[in-house]
Amino acid sequence: MAHLLSTSFSVKISSSDRPCGQPLNQARTALPSSFTIKTSKSPFKRLVSKGDRTRKSCVVLATAAPVSKEVTANTRSGFDESRSDSSKPQRVMVIGGDGYCGWATALHLSNKGYEVAIVDSLVRRLFDHQLGLDSLTPISSIHNRLRCWKAITGKTIELYIGDICDFEFLSETFNSFEPDAVVHFGEQRSAPYSMIDRSRAVFTQKNNVIGTLNVLFAIKEFREECHLVKLGTMGEYGTPNIDIEEGYITITHNGRTDTLPYPKQASSFYHLSKVHDSNNIAFTCKAWGIRATDLNQGVVYGVKTDETSMHEQLCNRLDYDGVFGTALNRFCVQAAVGHPLTVYGKGGQTRGYLDIRDTVQCVELAIANPAKPGEFRVFNQFTEQFSVNELAALVTKAGKKLGLDVQTISVPNSRVEAEEHYYNAKHTKLIELGLKPHLLSDSLLDSLLNFAIEFKDHVDTKQIMPSVSWKKIGVKPQTVPAN
Amino acid sequence: MAHLLSTSFSVKISSSDRPCGQPLNQARTALPSSFTIKTSKSPFKRLVSKGDRTRKSCVVLATAAPVSKEVTANTRSGFDESRSDSSKPQRVMVIGGDGYCGWATALHLSNKGYEVAIVDSLVRRLFDHQLGLDSLTPISSIHNRLRCWKAITGKTIELYIGDICDFEFLSETFNSFEPDAVVHFGEQRSAPYSMIDRSRAVFTQKNNVIGTLNVLFAIKEFREECHLVKLGTMGEYGTPNIDIEEGYITITHNGRTDTLPYPKQASSFYHLSKVHDSNNIAFTCKAWGIRATDLNQGVVYGVKTDETSMHEQLCNRLDYDGVFGTALNRFCVQAAVGHPLTVYGKGGQTRGYLDIRDTVQCVELAIANPAKPGEFRVFNQFTEQFSVNELAALVTKAGKKLGLDVQTISVPNSRVEAEEHYYNAKHTKLIELGLKPHLLSDSLLDSLLNFAIEFKDHVDTKQIMPSVSWKKIGVKPQTVPAN
Repeated sequence: MAHLLSTSFSVKISSSDRPCGQPLNQARTALPSSFTIKTSKSPFKRLVSKGDRTRKSCVVLATAAPVSKEVTANTRSGFDESRSDSSKPQRVMVIGGDGYCGWATALHLSNKGYEVAIVDSLVRRLFDHQLGLDSLTPISSIHNRLRCWKAITGKTIELYIGDICDFEFLSETFNSFEPDAVVHFGEQRSAPYSMIDRSRAVFTQKNNVIGTLNVLFAIKEFREECHLVKLGTMGEYGTPNIDIEEGYITITHNGRTDTLPYPKQASSFYHLSKVHDSNNIAFTCKAWGIRATDLNQGVVYGVKTDETSMHEQLCNRLDYDGVFGTALNRFCVQAAVGHPLTVYGKGGQTRGYLDIRDTVQCVELAIANPAKPGEFRVFNQFTEQFSVNELAALVTKAGKKLGLDVQTISVPNSRVEAEEHYYNAKHTKLIELGLKPHLLSDSLLDSLLNFAIEFKDHVDTKQIMPSVSWKKIGVKPQTVPAN
Repeated sequence: MAHLLSTSFSVKISSSDRPCGQPLNQARTALPSSFTIKTSKSPFKRLVSKGDRTRKSCVVLATAAPVSKEVTANTRSGFDESRSDSSKPQRVMVIGGDGYCGWATALHLSNKGYEVAIVDSLVRRLFDHQLGLDSLTPISSIHNRLRCWKAITGKTIELYIGDICDFEFLSETFNSFEPDAVVHFGEQRSAPYSMIDRSRAVFTQKNNVIGTLNVLFAIKEFREECHLVKLGTMGEYGTPNIDIEEGYITITHNGRTDTLPYPKQASSFYHLSKVHDSNNIAFTCKAWGIRATDLNQGVVYGVKTDETSMHEQLCNRLDYDGVFGTALNRFCVQAAVGHPLTVYGKGGQTRGYLDIRDTVQCVELAIANPAKPGEFRVFNQFTEQFSVNELAALVTKAGKKLGLDVQTISVPNSRVEAEEHYYNAKHTKLIELGLKPHLLSDSLLDSLLNFAIEFKDHVDTKQIMPSVSWKKIGVKPQTVPAN
């Protein structure tokens, strides 16, 4: 399949003589530019590629040795294997650390003193190329991002580039980095993407399920104390007509009582893949004693965190298209360019939402307070509920304050979902661990709208409308951009 | 992966001059021996292979045309597309029709007047070769089985050999055979197999989930009225401390009520793959209007059906090994050879059981009474509950009548499961449709024991003990037979 990557390699930034493109004052330190790349699938035993040093300044080397381990050995702080369950893990592997939530999380954890490695195949960037989509914000290469982070903060984030469905690659990353916690964002994360055609539906389930199985096996085999923090989604629950609990529900039935996994009703092949993951993880916690936290995340909005705001080369991606864009971010971009807000169907669809600054906070809380061995813990990770109509009204009001004439249109709902329904989802466990929510305020909306206005010349309006239909998905591969 | 098949082809038996090896009187008609093979993956445009006609009597031809369709066009009875939901579908595709339940079902449906095609990759036979296992009963090749069936009954069962994970192959089978119902047994069906090593765990989930996704897409694209009858397992439910309902449970929670999918707690990568399938199918019923019946089957025992008893070349497989053998069948074989009955752990594990004659009856009932468009219907397909200790006691008693000295030993439980638990699973829906159960009686046990005694010289006692551990599964491929 064209959207599958087969090459895996690890990259360790080791030295530098090149500053960030637009350095801040604190970025005037030397930036790394030398890479050592270890391939697991490459036919080459040795590969030396010297780029134009004035532009790329890099040396690419293929070696048989686990270079990341060599390089980091003398910088790693001592880690106490006998730590108590509540102590702070020190080495965190962020799978999918080049993506929207993953990038913000990797920087946040690095900033907080964790030793961080990013594991990513970069396939998310390939999806954009293949579908003719792009982030609203220009994003730097992962290599430049990490150089810049090193220059600004002096902190190294290790980088392993490869596909976790390739177990040989994943084994090498585990044995090289030796994580105490794995944060797993490394999945195809778009419901519409999974509904484009049969090939993408199959890719989504195979990629997500097998990748997660491999992570579970790697933990069992190489790092059995490692805490898995897995990103799930509130969409796993669907929209039941009863309150949504956090992972489990106590049922009394015919005079007997048991606490069982909360019934799931996912409504895309993507959401289903997350349900499959949750079931697989729960089993391995029971059978192998894996410690795992499943973060059923709501819809994330916003773009800036303390760390991504430090330098433009650290800027996060912002998706506004019909495939990867999510409701509130899309509405702000639409308002900025004068496009009517696109409400799908009746607009009564209600979901949990959270600021990306809370995503990174929640993940850190989960890591700092790990699950016990054998525990499969589920947190609903969102801070507020809104219907689509409520979001549209909020954006309309905020836009008016900025002099924007915001209109709303109802477009045919290309999804299969209830448009008017009961929704009341619990979300107390992360609050109990110490989450201080950034609730959606007028000032945040102002800020997000102003951000969208700043980048409005970058908007490709052809990407705005929904282009994927849940009912029309077929077996013929979609090989040209939808718009 | 070595256990994946990549070649797909369809076979249509068209003529014959060779009788069954040990023909019954009614088998004296000419037997087919000429095959036309259509390859979907073959690099050859035309392949002619003439075997030793005195031994193989076959001609193998590769053509580009969908030969099955050509050959069957003039034999197909008229099918009324406007039939009511309750009318009898006429063309049934049995995926996995060379396996234990699939073979018995294909013959039963053919005998009942359905036009039947078997779709099978034959990979189950490969598993035996790779693991050094074998059916207690000698089983004929699928080609000889079908020749014999044709000779005895005059009925043709079409044969498509290939992997349903190969969508090109599956498309061709759908467009060639044009099924009104698909019975889907075509999955890796052993829990221990899925727990041998990482490679088999991944294979099981990928094979089962992607194969089923492909079937769903094929129905949507090519045969949207086609009724999917999917084999699930009672093991999807696990052993909750409340009554198990048939697929759904009505929950009242915080003053509100909804009927939701029954919570699942599967306990092997195999059982989990069936849960994934169920969730995927439920979604497509809702999103696309697929009509589906999920048969959550209990543990099947017995070997003979009316049809497999007609001729020794129609004999079904009987697995007694620690990987594919199931409790009651294994106990009968153990008793026959004087091996102590192997009770895993405390033996309180209680499950639903059914006679293989009821498997074929249940599938026919599901086909004859199809689900409505958009309906995801779940039936619990078993007739009686037993604990392992109860089964051991029944076999001991039946063995004594036959003069066997049957001992029982407790062996360490290599699975992760409750050994003493509440269990009460509902199973009324198939009874309501007309199922007449063959309950486990002394005479059936006598018959099964006598059958095992008849074949006891074929028993390889090294295969009897459990060889796969749920806790010890690792990432290193198991490349040699376990015993």
